[in-house]
Amino acid sequence: MTSFTRSALNRVRRLQERGHYDKATIYPIIDEALICHVALVQDGQPFVIPTIHARMGDELILHGANASRLLQHIERGEPVCVGITLLDGLVLARSVFHSSMNYRSVVLFGRGRVVSEPAAKLAALEALSEHLAQGRWQDARKPTARELKATKVVAIAIDSASAKVRSGPPGDDEADYDLPIWAGVVPLDLRAEPPEPDPRLPDGTAVPAYAAHYVRR
Amino acid sequence: MTSFTRSALNRVRRLQERGHYDKATIYPIIDEALICHVALVQDGQPFVIPTIHARMGDELILHGANASRLLQHIERGEPVCVGITLLDGLVLARSVFHSSMNYRSVVLFGRGRVVSEPAAKLAALEALSEHLAQGRWQDARKPTARELKATKVVAIAIDSASAKVRSGPPGDDEADYDLPIWAGVVPLDLRAEPPEPDPRLPDGTAVPAYAAHYVRR
Repeated sequence: MTSFTRSALNRVRRLQERGHYDKATIYPIIDEALICHVALVQDGQPFVIPTIHARMGDELILHGANASRLLQHIERGEPVCVGITLLDGLVLARSVFHSSMNYRSVVLFGRGRVVSEPAAKLAALEALSEHLAQGRWQDARKPTARELKATKVVAIAIDSASAKVRSGPPGDDEADYDLPIWAGVVPLDLRAEPPEPDPRLPDGTAVPAYAAHYVRR
Repeated sequence: MTSFTRSALNRVRRLQERGHYDKATIYPIIDEALICHVALVQDGQPFVIPTIHARMGDELILHGANASRLLQHIERGEPVCVGITLLDGLVLARSVFHSSMNYRSVVLFGRGRVVSEPAAKLAALEALSEHLAQGRWQDARKPTARELKATKVVAIAIDSASAKVRSGPPGDDEADYDLPIWAGVVPLDLRAEPPEPDPRLPDGTAVPAYAAHYVRR
């Protein structure tokens, strides 16, 4: 399956021309984002929780403490909805009405399972670590048995998803193009700045490339 | 009231030392973020929708098309939960276990009302525009009566909220400080790049300062 079926869950209703249902559009957005926002329902009340994630195939990996309310909720098999948004720019149209943002967003739906088998759990933690900083897993001290036991990992099957994407210049009303108003896009990018070494690091400790010249996936 | 009461809704459960309940911490995070993620429940199913926002006093302003499912939901008085997250850095601890992110996040809870009185509606749209680009409202073509009619504005009373903040260097296990592993923070910042003028803009149209040197609030 290379695309998700359109359904009441994932159909993009507003500005349908911005909607995408193919994994070739959806998965790179998930992979580029550093965090996601997970929505869940408890006693009819919506909650949203930001957390880091990684994608392994058609599953979204989350992790946290054993006592995490979010992870316990997912462990019980409850449905979640995950929102992931990359901001690409401010779209300053001549009119306020047509002003907008350039963005790439994904909303996905699914239910999760706990990943408890040790090798699979370690692989999931490696995916989370590599998602944030490619190469770090090899350098860092790996989890101990005690740390693994204190950590819960869940895998959410991505049952349904869609992306919404806006790019390019403003789209003004034809009559407004004659107005003497500057219009265009202010590009936005989440960028890394030079790394700040830990104050307790011995002088001369080599800075790894993924920290010195950090590149998001 | 300068702080929100701790309750089952907003209490920070994990890493409680990172939790904040005072408006002096919470409101600047809301104001700095360019987008939020709104969670809602429909027929027991959670949904999360990214959108732009602005804060006016103790209310969060959202807007969109009249047909917006999110805004219709809010208009019916249903509860929503809004997540707002600013990423400040990757925290590369010596151990994978203590690696983390530096962030400032807010989760808020409330119910909304439609803002229909014309002057209040225009003021809310101005707040949204100014939230994204301070100074733009004065330059841009203001909404017409027809555009105002096609736009829905809602104000969500912020009934409950909390912030969660992590900053500073990694916190490794004492024994790990002797390991020959680089550790520190890779700061992250959502930054503006030089503006891209609309291709249809007449040559020589002056670039306003808020686009040439964009600064987030």
